[in-house]
This record gives sequence, C-alpha cells and structure tokens, in this order.
Amino acid sequence: MSNRPLILISNDDGVQAQGIQVLTRLMRSLGDVIVVAPDSARSGAACGITPVRPVRVSLLHEEDGLCCYECSGTPVDCVKLALEKVVPRRPDLMVSGINHGDNASVSLHYSGTMGAVLEACMKAVPAIGYSLMTRLQQCDFTPYEDVVLRVARRVLSDGLPQDVCLNVNFPFVEQLQGVSVCRMARGNWLQEWRETEVPGEYCLTGYFTNLEPEAEDTDYWALQHGIAAVTPIQLDMTHYPLLGHFEV
Amino acid sequence: MSNRPLILISNDDGVQAQGIQVLTRLMRSLGDVIVVAPDSARSGAACGITPVRPVRVSLLHEEDGLCCYECSGTPVDCVKLALEKVVPRRPDLMVSGINHGDNASVSLHYSGTMGAVLEACMKAVPAIGYSLMTRLQQCDFTPYEDVVLRVARRVLSDGLPQDVCLNVNFPFVEQLQGVSVCRMARGNWLQEWRETEVPGEYCLTGYFTNLEPEAEDTDYWALQHGIAAVTPIQLDMTHYPLLGHFEV
Repeated sequence: MSNRPLILISNDDGVQAQGIQVLTRLMRSLGDVIVVAPDSARSGAACGITPVRPVRVSLLHEEDGLCCYECSGTPVDCVKLALEKVVPRRPDLMVSGINHGDNASVSLHYSGTMGAVLEACMKAVPAIGYSLMTRLQQCDFTPYEDVVLRVARRVLSDGLPQDVCLNVNFPFVEQLQGVSVCRMARGNWLQEWRETEVPGEYCLTGYFTNLEPEAEDTDYWALQHGIAAVTPIQLDMTHYPLLGHFEV
Repeated sequence: MSNRPLILISNDDGVQAQGIQVLTRLMRSLGDVIVVAPDSARSGAACGITPVRPVRVSLLHEEDGLCCYECSGTPVDCVKLALEKVVPRRPDLMVSGINHGDNASVSLHYSGTMGAVLEACMKAVPAIGYSLMTRLQQCDFTPYEDVVLRVARRVLSDGLPQDVCLNVNFPFVEQLQGVSVCRMARGNWLQEWRETEVPGEYCLTGYFTNLEPEAEDTDYWALQHGIAAVTPIQLDMTHYPLLGHFEV
C-alpha cells in the first residue's frame, strides 16, 4: 500500500457528475483516491439514510492510485459503506462535491453533499464539502481549483477540531475575489411550490433570501461579492444559551 | 375561524402511525389541529426534500378542529407544503412525532421527525419534535403524555428564541424519573452493515454508542436513567471558535 494520503470522495450529484470528476482529478495530485458515490443524482438527500431496502456497492473501475465505486444508496450511505466495507484503512481526508448548486446558509440542512461530509465527520475523518453556485451541469471549474487544493492541503496538514468539518462554497465567477472564513447566514427559501396541472400536486422550486444582507461576515455575503466562503460546521446543534433557562 | 391556537403536526413514520395519532389527540386539547404527514414511513429522511418529482397532498378527513392530510413527499416537504399551501394562517406551534425510535445525540442528523421540526423552525414557527426510545410500532404512550403537553404549553405561552427548536426524547419506561433540559451527547453508530446473500449488498443496522457515558448533562445520559431529555437545537451549525483561526 502506498504511503500517500488516502482520500475518500463522495457527492450527491452522482458518480458521473462533472463536479466529482474534477474533484477526483484534483485529489489525485494529493494522494490515493477512493470514490464511493451514488449511482444517480441524490440532490436534497440531506443526511438521509436507507433503513429499509438493501444498499448495493459495485466497483466501476480501478487504476493506479484510484478506485471508483458506485452505490445505490444516499450520500450518507455511501460514506457509511465506504468506511466500514470499502477502505483499507481510515482515510486521511474525505471530500464531497464539487456540488452543482451552492450549499450556503440554511441550504446546508438539505444538502446531500454536506450530508456525506457530516457523516465522515461523525466517524472522525477530516471532511470538506465543496459546492459551486450554479445549477449548470457542465461548467468551467478552473477558477476554483486552486482554492479546492489549498483548503484540502491545509486540512491534510493541520486536521480539524473534533466534530468539526468544512463547508466550502464558490460563487460562479470567472475570477475569485478572495477567500473568506465565515459563518452561516440566516436565510430562508420562499415561494417554494409551483402548481402542476394535477390538482393537489406541486413541484419544488423557490428562491433563497439572505435575512441579514448587510452582515459582511456570512457565507452568503461572500458569495454575493465573488468571494469563496469557507464555513466551519459542527455536529453539535445544541443551543447552549437555553440550557438552565427553559423550564418544563 | 376559531380563536384557539393553531397547531401543525407532522412526522416521519407516516400519517397512520400510532405516535402521530396519540400526538394529534393530545394537541387537540390545546388548539385546532392540522396534520400534514407522509403517506407512508420515511424513517431516516433527515432534512431531505423532493427536488425532481411532483409532490401530492390530499385531504384524508376533516372534523371540528381537525384537518388531516397525507403527502407523498418527505417530512420536510410536508411542512413546506403545509405552510405555503394548506394552513389558513401561520401556526402558533408545530409538533412532530411521536417518533417510534429515539432521535438523541447524532441520530438527530438522520431524523425525519426532526427534519420537519427544523423546517418549521426555519419558517419561524415554534417547533418541537417528540421521540420515544423504542422501535415497537404499538406501545403505551401514557407515561409520556403529561410531559408532551407540558412542553407544548410552555412553548405556546413563552415561544422559543429565533432559529431554535426543541428535540424531546423519552426513555421507554413505565414511569418517567423526571425531565432534563440537556445538550446532545457525542455519539456514534457502529457496525452498521449486515451482509445480505447478494455479494456487494448490505442492509443498514448497527448500534449507537455514547462517546461520553460519564457526562450527566447529555440527552443520552438522561434517557439511560429513565429521564425525558429536552434538548434545544439551533439552525446555525457554524463552529465559531474556528473563525479567525483557520487560514487558507
């Protein structure tokens, strides 16, 4: 086995998506790579798991320094299966994406890309999610490659605090205006349902609103100013200020 | 329209589950109730949404102070649809459950019950998830009814901080030993995959481990001591200590 870092890759757009192919090419410059990704798109899968049906994992191809598997489950299933049944040892890094669509602000909660990252984080693997603020299925990832690599190299060398992972979002621009380490913006999705021709049937749509557009320390502010947003995310969702102040 | 509080109910075990029927009966003593719940079980749906296929919502039955709908989508879809297309006004309270299975510690992240709660919280509706630490599909909820009502009454009267909701977990006991307002335990799921007879195919299983079993201020400690755990949960997952200390 090689002495290079072992890097696990997953996503939610599926193993054939352009974003994961770019990410795989970039990570191969840093270490040996194992890809375990959904066999088709799982956008909006969040931290969903498959508790009822069996989940299948199959080798797609193998070459020097790269093994690529597809999995019939969710992004979280992919990471759970990879870590328990596929990898030869605990990976030094897990990366997810590059997602076609941003996962800033509350979109984090719906994100399968970040679901995979949170799962790796739970299993004590340093993990980074990368997302790009466009739904285009084919686009030029060149402007973001340097930051993808810089963040990954930093995590490989320094690690991350226990139970903390990174959510990296890129604005869709020709040239980044910088990189900001920032917090999640307060935000919301509005007008989310479009009626179909069938009564009682709706399709999910809507637009995101930044509820604090003036705050310059948020991920969404960065994206709106052409800046890559790096947001540290923790597993612990406890709201500590209420402990000792809420009585039943 | 009535002057009583308006309460929205959902879950992830489906509209026919015993837990949501108990919760509906209890909430009707506090206000007018609208149920919008999945048409079948969606355990492990987390904050998943349905971005591709249409989602359908249909009225199941209506009586004085109660409207009950089933929905073909995820728990989060149910809440999104309810708030945008079903309710006559913003509900005073949203409750989810009572889930068959606990959602303490990191199980929160996989939980469709709590996905529905987080969605209501994003939409500024005070929201509570209730879960019971047994997978039994039929059981006696009597020991928990008083605490279900006390927590709901408290939130109806005092509200919750912005972007904060509650995750309430009950131990499976004949008599509760108390109620604790506590934080999420650090925990993990282990040995999660059972092989099927088909090579490369696995079924999700596993057991939960509390990574800090000595800590008495956690949800899991409470459950293991017969105590109901009330955990305040926030939407903001930013790990603030790393801001200003992570350089790219």
